[in-house]
Amino acid sequence: MNVFVVGLGLIGGSLALDIQEHYPKAVVYGVDKNEAHLQEALDLGIINQKASFTDIEKADIVIVAIPVDVQLTVIPEILDLVKEHAVVIDVGSTKFKICDVLKNHPKRRNFLATHPIAGTEFSGPKAALKGLFKKKTNIICEVEKTAFKLQEKALDIFIKIGMRIRYMDPKMHDEHIAYVSHLSHISSFMLGKTVIEKEKNERDIFDMAGSGFSSTVRLAKSSPAMWTPIFKQNKENVIKTLEEYINNLTSFKELMQQDNFLEIYNEMQNTNYIKQILNGIH
Amino acid sequence: MNVFVVGLGLIGGSLALDIQEHYPKAVVYGVDKNEAHLQEALDLGIINQKASFTDIEKADIVIVAIPVDVQLTVIPEILDLVKEHAVVIDVGSTKFKICDVLKNHPKRRNFLATHPIAGTEFSGPKAALKGLFKKKTNIICEVEKTAFKLQEKALDIFIKIGMRIRYMDPKMHDEHIAYVSHLSHISSFMLGKTVIEKEKNERDIFDMAGSGFSSTVRLAKSSPAMWTPIFKQNKENVIKTLEEYINNLTSFKELMQQDNFLEIYNEMQNTNYIKQILNGIH
Repeated sequence: MNVFVVGLGLIGGSLALDIQEHYPKAVVYGVDKNEAHLQEALDLGIINQKASFTDIEKADIVIVAIPVDVQLTVIPEILDLVKEHAVVIDVGSTKFKICDVLKNHPKRRNFLATHPIAGTEFSGPKAALKGLFKKKTNIICEVEKTAFKLQEKALDIFIKIGMRIRYMDPKMHDEHIAYVSHLSHISSFMLGKTVIEKEKNERDIFDMAGSGFSSTVRLAKSSPAMWTPIFKQNKENVIKTLEEYINNLTSFKELMQQDNFLEIYNEMQNTNYIKQILNGIH
Repeated sequence: MNVFVVGLGLIGGSLALDIQEHYPKAVVYGVDKNEAHLQEALDLGIINQKASFTDIEKADIVIVAIPVDVQLTVIPEILDLVKEHAVVIDVGSTKFKICDVLKNHPKRRNFLATHPIAGTEFSGPKAALKGLFKKKTNIICEVEKTAFKLQEKALDIFIKIGMRIRYMDPKMHDEHIAYVSHLSHISSFMLGKTVIEKEKNERDIFDMAGSGFSSTVRLAKSSPAMWTPIFKQNKENVIKTLEEYINNLTSFKELMQQDNFLEIYNEMQNTNYIKQILNGIH
């Protein structure tokens, strides 16, 4: 089995590692426009061989793990190159645009739109982790548009690496993921920004930061190159979540200004409901 | 050595555990207005004996770990009760108010104002953890107002349990802690609220939440009983941080509305600077 991984960052690299583990006979080829990353992936044993686009015709499986804007032109080109029995899997954080771009592609049945919800705040081949996807959720969109045998081939991988599968419409995916993922990133980036603006020149102050700050600001380490195109593609949904978030923060501030600490208590107590929800996640 | 711990929640309970470990000859007495918590602390071995306020005259060390509003009346009463050689240590998240309330107390020299910056999102005696304070920072305020021998007695504890000590003016403490702790909690609570409002009746959606969401929303599990009085006491500083945070979020939203994704990229890249800062923390 020839597996091509296009884009050897955190997600692509981690998938390559897991595929090597679960498919000992597979040959994992790496493709990356960044030659240094490609070499690094080879040196780290993430891939078995370096390859280029012209080799993709040999592929049985192609996993595309590149920024969601670049995807829109690269995936149609890959589909043009692959053989009839090959499946091309995208793993981006937005699903509406790529499904829309490919809807009339003659090889649409060779494509599977997925979003494996896993990651860390790090990026590049060094960030790749074995077992990253274990017990995580993979959202698959428009499954009915993929050839049945190719669905099976892709599912076999996701099941072997330990993922739960959920099926969802791409539009719904993008709307909900704005709340449970994209908004968290912006809230964290802007928290980091607010604190840096105040404290940048007072390094001692960060001695005062405990694990609470580290945890809420962790996502502010994430890659701008990955996240900018995500926010761009999911612009309308993300703006909506931001407006709701800003409104909630403003109300909280106004309650403080009005000395309505009873209501502040109630707000926090109601939001403690998140405990039950998070218990459901883990 | 008779150590009294008043308030057997996460912080008081964890201190009691560490003191038992590092001072095998100490007798740790627990005081808590919640009789169930007091019994639980005894059953869990967090304290050696249950006690009440009238026993406090026996104390060599009193640690007060109760909500910061209740503190303001309880600590003066405790100071009235203790012997000349005893030190009364508060561990609350705000420092200006308690220092102000005690500034003319006849036993001010028996009091030490501290803020051990450690914790989890859990509360009550069950949340107590051995070693919670290891490598964490303790901010001590107005150290010069505490009798020298009593400073030494308190410092001995904090050093033995593994803390770094920083000295700071109470007003500066409250201003900076608003950024690196209090704001994180509100940002997390309001993130939780925003997502719950949208998704409460769509439980399946939370399958989509990954570790990023869990991490940014973790502090929204925190105790309203502890945090409401903190926000109340640090009202002016917290409102200021909230205004700056809301302004930053609003600018980010406006950049998105203007399709200025170059600037969005720059904002995120600049905020990646938080990596260096967090490396300094851990």
